[in-house]
Amino acid sequence: MFTDQILTKIEDRLNELLVNNDNLVLLEAMRYSSLNGGKRVRPFLVMAAGKISQAQSAVLLDIGVAIELIHCYSLIHDDLPAMDDDDLRRGLPTCHKQYGEAMAILAGDALQAQAFVVLSSDSLRLDCAIKLKIINLVASSAGVNGMVGGQALDLLSTGTNLTLPQLQHMHIKKTGALISAAILSGYLAGANCKPEIYDKLVLIANNIGLLFQITDDILDATADTNTLGKTANKDWAANKATYVNILGLEKAQHMADNLYNTTIEMLRHLSQSEELTTLTHFVYNRSN
Amino acid sequence: MFTDQILTKIEDRLNELLVNNDNLVLLEAMRYSSLNGGKRVRPFLVMAAGKISQAQSAVLLDIGVAIELIHCYSLIHDDLPAMDDDDLRRGLPTCHKQYGEAMAILAGDALQAQAFVVLSSDSLRLDCAIKLKIINLVASSAGVNGMVGGQALDLLSTGTNLTLPQLQHMHIKKTGALISAAILSGYLAGANCKPEIYDKLVLIANNIGLLFQITDDILDATADTNTLGKTANKDWAANKATYVNILGLEKAQHMADNLYNTTIEMLRHLSQSEELTTLTHFVYNRSN
Repeated sequence: MFTDQILTKIEDRLNELLVNNDNLVLLEAMRYSSLNGGKRVRPFLVMAAGKISQAQSAVLLDIGVAIELIHCYSLIHDDLPAMDDDDLRRGLPTCHKQYGEAMAILAGDALQAQAFVVLSSDSLRLDCAIKLKIINLVASSAGVNGMVGGQALDLLSTGTNLTLPQLQHMHIKKTGALISAAILSGYLAGANCKPEIYDKLVLIANNIGLLFQITDDILDATADTNTLGKTANKDWAANKATYVNILGLEKAQHMADNLYNTTIEMLRHLSQSEELTTLTHFVYNRSN
Repeated sequence: MFTDQILTKIEDRLNELLVNNDNLVLLEAMRYSSLNGGKRVRPFLVMAAGKISQAQSAVLLDIGVAIELIHCYSLIHDDLPAMDDDDLRRGLPTCHKQYGEAMAILAGDALQAQAFVVLSSDSLRLDCAIKLKIINLVASSAGVNGMVGGQALDLLSTGTNLTLPQLQHMHIKKTGALISAAILSGYLAGANCKPEIYDKLVLIANNIGLLFQITDDILDATADTNTLGKTANKDWAANKATYVNILGLEKAQHMADNLYNTTIEMLRHLSQSEELTTLTHFVYNRSN
């Protein structure tokens, strides 16, 4: 798994779902910010978790792509002048730099709606009740109690001194919620889904989300702009609370190490979890 | 119907769904822009259409409120400096004037997600397959092929000369799609839902959406800011294409009259459609 072949499938499906037959500028902006070579961590997490419960590949692909659309919309809005005011994303001008601020706001809005079009579509071959559970999970994790709620906390905390628990609370919402939703949705989509394993996956998913954020902060502090494909040292410069700012680089790395080891150990007791283990390793070791 | 009692139910349910136990600024902004006395045309349309198919009141209330959340989010984003740059909405400062631009963007984003939380919730007592159909309808009508798509066309057309068909195409998306979704969702929620009546309602819903936009344009050109609760003559001043700009006030009014009469005639042949008739009359005769 985690191969170029699967990556191509993800790109192809995104491309299909955002087909622009009428040459709409809005769709062009949506495509610009969704088809430009993200890492696709969330779709891969959906697929890896779905392997544990023997879910079908086509179903996992669509759930993964829907969650990726939400992730892409959040990046567009995050980059806006009123938010992080960033010019560079995945090595290219940000959406508002390319299409203007108004079109970027609308592209984000439409991508969020599109995610729910995909998840509620007849072409997603899944039991109705499970589909609704996944929609509810994804919508909750994207909204005020999840991603957007975390972004608001982040916004309000800029320039203030957060404690470590406050920082974690913010990140569990901001990054963790959608990553958890990806893992849990993938698992829910399988025929062999069991409540006791679901409960374990909730903990594992939280860890992976947290690990993702800590490594993000470490990369922001240590990698260069070219490697990241987005402006490096941005959080540091903006005086944002990060694990590196609060703990220092060494302790932040130590926390990531511990979290990685704990999560790998938890996954060792879960059958069919090899792909999720590989992904956890990737999140821990990534260079961008 | 269309009474203060039902209006109170809508406000109460919105209030419940946006309860702010943790005093979050984001939720405060979401509440500010959702609980400030809108006309609630869309929830009323859901309820009126649901009467035709004998849907349950509690179900209709939640569908209506979910669609209203999407409407409220669209108003917040519409008012942003990069979009219409409006200071006044429903007689109060717009969301970004009150909470800043970044928080307003996030409040809109979270309201959209919340709509899908409500529609996918277990507490919405409706057959799973119907729920999914409604979610798909609402998400499609909110996205690139509906409301947001229409807003993008509106944005791109500002300062250009639209033909009447181009203007209608834009409005069918921008305003019509969500109004249609409200009417069709309400109807779908009833046990007595029939395909041949659904098809008729599609046409009726299109007419009501169009009528809503024409009367909006007429009000923008004729009413004062105080009556509207938002800046009057805004579209005119911004050189936006409106029915009044293209047709002149008299022909625009004539078009509204014709549309109203046709729609009322169509509704006359539909049993249990009295409430939808009353609402059509309200849309035609409203003063704000």
